[in-house]
Amino acid sequence: MADADFPFTDIVRALPAATPFVGPETLQRERGAPFRARVGANESAFGVSPEAKAAMAEALETVSWYGDAESWALKEALAAHHGVAAEEIVIGAGIDGLLGVLVRATVAEGTPVVTSKGAYPTFNYHVTGFGGRLEFVPYRDDREDWPALLARAEEVAAPLVYFSNPDNPMGTWYGADAVQRLIDAVPDGRLLALDEAYADFAPADAIPPIDPSNPRVVRFRTFSKAHGMAGARIGYAIAHRDVVVAFNKIRNHFEVNRVAQAGALASLKDWAFLDGVVAEVARGRDHYYRIADRLGLKAIASATNFVALDLGRDGDFARAVLKALQEEGVFIRMPGVAPLDRCIRVTVGRAEERAVFAETLERTLERLG
Amino acid sequence: MADADFPFTDIVRALPAATPFVGPETLQRERGAPFRARVGANESAFGVSPEAKAAMAEALETVSWYGDAESWALKEALAAHHGVAAEEIVIGAGIDGLLGVLVRATVAEGTPVVTSKGAYPTFNYHVTGFGGRLEFVPYRDDREDWPALLARAEEVAAPLVYFSNPDNPMGTWYGADAVQRLIDAVPDGRLLALDEAYADFAPADAIPPIDPSNPRVVRFRTFSKAHGMAGARIGYAIAHRDVVVAFNKIRNHFEVNRVAQAGALASLKDWAFLDGVVAEVARGRDHYYRIADRLGLKAIASATNFVALDLGRDGDFARAVLKALQEEGVFIRMPGVAPLDRCIRVTVGRAEERAVFAETLERTLERLG
Repeated sequence: MADADFPFTDIVRALPAATPFVGPETLQRERGAPFRARVGANESAFGVSPEAKAAMAEALETVSWYGDAESWALKEALAAHHGVAAEEIVIGAGIDGLLGVLVRATVAEGTPVVTSKGAYPTFNYHVTGFGGRLEFVPYRDDREDWPALLARAEEVAAPLVYFSNPDNPMGTWYGADAVQRLIDAVPDGRLLALDEAYADFAPADAIPPIDPSNPRVVRFRTFSKAHGMAGARIGYAIAHRDVVVAFNKIRNHFEVNRVAQAGALASLKDWAFLDGVVAEVARGRDHYYRIADRLGLKAIASATNFVALDLGRDGDFARAVLKALQEEGVFIRMPGVAPLDRCIRVTVGRAEERAVFAETLERTLERLG
Repeated sequence: MADADFPFTDIVRALPAATPFVGPETLQRERGAPFRARVGANESAFGVSPEAKAAMAEALETVSWYGDAESWALKEALAAHHGVAAEEIVIGAGIDGLLGVLVRATVAEGTPVVTSKGAYPTFNYHVTGFGGRLEFVPYRDDREDWPALLARAEEVAAPLVYFSNPDNPMGTWYGADAVQRLIDAVPDGRLLALDEAYADFAPADAIPPIDPSNPRVVRFRTFSKAHGMAGARIGYAIAHRDVVVAFNKIRNHFEVNRVAQAGALASLKDWAFLDGVVAEVARGRDHYYRIADRLGLKAIASATNFVALDLGRDGDFARAVLKALQEEGVFIRMPGVAPLDRCIRVTVGRAEERAVFAETLERTLERLG
């Protein structure tokens, strides 16, 4: 059909039909075989808390009922954990969806939004999807350059700025003092989307205190990473209560599934499990650092559950390596733009997955050399 | 904070802060005790297929992985079931979310959208939430008046019209011939959102054949009702493939949870279970009809898993009855506007829930006279 046959908005007509999110299942279908190592989507290789799994299995008994639209019990538990009020939290089906709600609340056609060139593409997808205009700032030394982000936001009068700490896809981070300086420097009437999806893996001194009385920052957290619940779809934002009111004006109130609510609540009480995962991930990162050393590559120090490996060549070379790895059953990803795309990004898998990755990478580098 | 302190869009600023979706858990918290009968949200009282439950329990083993962004296996199964192509299906986290995507794709600030006065409020929530202008058409004899909906859409040049068959909140329906006449009468360049959430309960001759070559209709189905998976959040739309392309341009690609995908796929193969639920629901409706008879009320014949009971008085009376029932632990809902609000709406519960409802309603009617 011609486009004119459909009453789509101008914004939607102008969007590209190709989506940038080719998931591992799609890639497996294309290659006709499952991956030997699924270390590309920063999913947890260390499973879910046994307490959470038991709670989710029990929740299946009442899966005929919609989840609580307020996720009240979970909000109360999170409020106690973070020392904030329940009214300063909004639960959603993962950070992706919550970022979409924030973008929708702040971005109209042509609204400028500032982020780093190469940072989280799903945020960009939302901005473009709501007709916003992305203003990119380059990374600096493989970190998101927060003073430059602020300067650009000022220059183009952007109501919304995206910053992740620790960063994805590079795994780099700032200390709490620097992030606090960024937070303090956001002008009145602007919002900082502070994506802390990987906060659980970061050193304690990388995460500034949470202060929801500050109306200029929205902090995003998730159960998809350290808690190992990516497939359950649940995350949250902490913000000034008036920002939460805005979320509640437009969010899909019954989107969070009941099983995820039960699992998140249980996982939140199983800190021993979480500590274990974080320790395993730290060991896995060290393993990747050693692999890089052995192969003569530079591993970029990471505060996340993945490591970016600098292959020391250009994006075409890294893309060729990524393609070769995928063909051999190793699912990884890589940054989308230069100069970050000299790297490949590998999630901390189980020891055997890391070994498969190391062996395949070594062979691939020898071959493509 | 003053509104001016936040960079929200004009649309979001103008929206009311109060949400119309007070869920049963919230009501329970307010009354300080659980409901004795949860028969208000049209959830299934007959659980989930044992096959689906087993598949979901198994899926918990890989809950650390994101779900397949394409829900490919489920799409293939649905395509085979409905005799359409996989490219004519989009899976989402329930009909609510999918309706939101369709509204977003077609509604800009001020866009007129036509629906029935008293029909599904979540659709209205999305239209208002994207800045659209709702144009209401009254029900006619407790049914959505499709010729009047079409006439109003023509009059105001609405790109989008909402129609549900069977209807919620009245439970009424049209035969396939009438619905097909509606579908055929939608002008080129317009879209009909045909909400068939309750189709599994309807007589076979109420559902017209699915023809995704028609670019003017989007049909919505769900696993939340007969399949008993409301808490898992999974539904789908069937539409022309170019409409699916538009959905894919803006939907949250990783929003569907992995557990729900596995459960839906298994439930789709367990038709014996589904047939059993549908038969149980039919018996439950008959039970409500008999209760109404005994209490001198008019039950409105329903093709869904709920029954609207005409209390024969005005909205204030029905609201008083609803309030009294809730205070006694019976969760029901009712239509929001006159003249539908002379009714209360009760979901088919288990036999014991229906008995609690009947006993409490009888006492309440005696008391309120």
